[in-house]
Amino acid sequence: MTSGSDFLLAARQCEIAELEELARTSELVAAIGRFIHGLQRERGMSNVFLSSQGKQFGPLRLLQVAECAGMEQQVRAQFDRLDIHSSQVRHGARLFSRVAVGLHGLDGLPALRQRVARQELPARESSAAYTRLVAGLLAVVFEAADSAMDPEISRALVAMFNFMQGKEFAGQERALGASLFGSGAIDLAGQQQWRHLIDSQQGCFQAFADFSDPEVLRADQASRDPAVIAEVERLRRIGCAGRPVALDSSLSQHWYEWATRRIDAMRGVEDVLTVNLRQLCEARIAQARTELRDQKALLEALASEAPYPGAEHAAPFGPQLDRSVLAMVQEQSRRLQAMSDELDAVRASLTERKVVERAKGLLMAHRHMTEDEAYKALRQMAMNQNRRLVDVAEAVLSLADVLPGGR
Amino acid sequence: MTSGSDFLLAARQCEIAELEELARTSELVAAIGRFIHGLQRERGMSNVFLSSQGKQFGPLRLLQVAECAGMEQQVRAQFDRLDIHSSQVRHGARLFSRVAVGLHGLDGLPALRQRVARQELPARESSAAYTRLVAGLLAVVFEAADSAMDPEISRALVAMFNFMQGKEFAGQERALGASLFGSGAIDLAGQQQWRHLIDSQQGCFQAFADFSDPEVLRADQASRDPAVIAEVERLRRIGCAGRPVALDSSLSQHWYEWATRRIDAMRGVEDVLTVNLRQLCEARIAQARTELRDQKALLEALASEAPYPGAEHAAPFGPQLDRSVLAMVQEQSRRLQAMSDELDAVRASLTERKVVERAKGLLMAHRHMTEDEAYKALRQMAMNQNRRLVDVAEAVLSLADVLPGGR
Repeated sequence: MTSGSDFLLAARQCEIAELEELARTSELVAAIGRFIHGLQRERGMSNVFLSSQGKQFGPLRLLQVAECAGMEQQVRAQFDRLDIHSSQVRHGARLFSRVAVGLHGLDGLPALRQRVARQELPARESSAAYTRLVAGLLAVVFEAADSAMDPEISRALVAMFNFMQGKEFAGQERALGASLFGSGAIDLAGQQQWRHLIDSQQGCFQAFADFSDPEVLRADQASRDPAVIAEVERLRRIGCAGRPVALDSSLSQHWYEWATRRIDAMRGVEDVLTVNLRQLCEARIAQARTELRDQKALLEALASEAPYPGAEHAAPFGPQLDRSVLAMVQEQSRRLQAMSDELDAVRASLTERKVVERAKGLLMAHRHMTEDEAYKALRQMAMNQNRRLVDVAEAVLSLADVLPGGR
Repeated sequence: MTSGSDFLLAARQCEIAELEELARTSELVAAIGRFIHGLQRERGMSNVFLSSQGKQFGPLRLLQVAECAGMEQQVRAQFDRLDIHSSQVRHGARLFSRVAVGLHGLDGLPALRQRVARQELPARESSAAYTRLVAGLLAVVFEAADSAMDPEISRALVAMFNFMQGKEFAGQERALGASLFGSGAIDLAGQQQWRHLIDSQQGCFQAFADFSDPEVLRADQASRDPAVIAEVERLRRIGCAGRPVALDSSLSQHWYEWATRRIDAMRGVEDVLTVNLRQLCEARIAQARTELRDQKALLEALASEAPYPGAEHAAPFGPQLDRSVLAMVQEQSRRLQAMSDELDAVRASLTERKVVERAKGLLMAHRHMTEDEAYKALRQMAMNQNRRLVDVAEAVLSLADVLPGGR
């Protein structure tokens, strides 16, 4: 028969198994981060390549594609390490489902690259395809952050997700700016969209700061070259002047380069986040193992101290020491509950994104929109009403009951 | 290499594994419900036995002890079915930790019964020991409700937990009423405590009603014999008259019998809840298996329809049908997210209890109180201020920062 002590130790072993799984997921997240950075560069180069009718970035783009292929293999290798046959990975259903979406995007990548190489599609369409792929991969990271069972590691993953998402908005801004400057004139709608991307970045980087260690924040500060920030801000000011402007289209290349410097510096912060996350996982695992060993030793000591034969029955660990075992099991139970409460608090920060996802789903179902269309509709509403995306999404959801059934 | 379809199917298989685990947990919850009912009777009989200096309920109590031993074996057998060695049971750490507390209580039961048989402890102390044991078992049920990953089943478990907890408050009310009537006089403090137990029951039964199927609610309605309710209410009115009263102590036995009728009727509702929960688990498992089969068949059909050799590479499922696979993976991902949101909403109803637990933990740490003392302190504050327990607990937690460090 399984005893209380068996369960006590088994609970601790479950914690260790969870932490080890989180360490694996963190490696996956790190590989995804590196790959996304590569895809962001590939997206940008493909954009310039297509916009210039193949005159610019031709060979560079091919080099970047080759580099991305290597990083893709690393991500796929990490996916393979997820044990899909055990059916036991925690929150496996949701994580696997996100991975399926991500892999579906990867499978379409060769065809996309072929069409880019043959210049068979406009820059805008190529850019949107890469953006969808990146979004699919970011959703895997989101899921990892949302399903982590350890509050400290969950905090680190939430910080990481927000940083990656903020960096992706920066990448979209780079593409938008390059294309707007390149067109030689920026209208109000373009400016509005640009400002929206700046706001979205700020929201993400704020959340990143809220959940980050001082060490990571210092690395982030150190990564910001004031000269780069100043030049990016100057170009933003020219681009989003608040009235339609005619521009020197050579600014496009200039903007692209400075925006790239800014984004490449972010990649360095991601590396710090990755190392930090790995160390955190290792420290938590080591700590849990030590506690398990101590607990085992204590239980064995207590069991051997039964003062007379048969006393185990009356008070299973000896009458005097019975209280200390009770205190131990109660303390463990309370600690796990406190962790779970803390976790709820960390996860609450992910709610905004979920609200937007739900609103998108609603628009897709009731208005027969694609995912892209639904997102654009929400964004347009937010821009027109000068409200945050999440507030518009909340408003859409609250209208759910009065929307026509559709289908 | 693991493909997107593999992950899609693996996600579904994870869901099935989770549902099967929930079905097992539900059987454990059912066994705990039966055992708690037995313990509640044993607590009551032990009370009367001790209060009457062994004159009443002597043989009946022994019969009840024997019956409880059988039910205890069933609970232990269910505990044994939890696979503690896989370290993979979802939320295993928290569940196992609760089981450890519960088993610790069970291990102390033989010693408690021996002391009752020898009349070595007062009724109040015996009653408190049984109540602690029941609370430990209810915490296992709470954990099961809190960790269920399927919103429908989580609703059913939340309803069940609240019903069981309400029934336990009814059992405590029975014990309190019997002892107060038995003492021949009821003071204001006793009346206040009595009213608090009535309020606590109402809170639980309201939550039970909020999360129950119409079928369960009908069973609950049908179980309420108006004659029993009327007599219980009449006796409550006499007991909680709002001013100190002198009473015929023979009312004690009378109250005990009518309160028992009420509680025994509740046991029937628990059986309906159990059957309902089992059917729900079976239906959800069958549904998930059908969906998995359909999805498998569809993916195989799509894979075989690649229109020309090599087309799998360009668009992995054939270009026309690529969209339908994408729709399938996105739909699954969105459905799982929606389930998770719904789950958060169901779980939010368990927050009150968690807040009270946290406040208790705080008092234990800062005021060196035992768990019982902390709970009594909170209850006393709630009664004095005429506020709900959860509001007092919130207030205590908000004072956490200004409390002296203690230790």
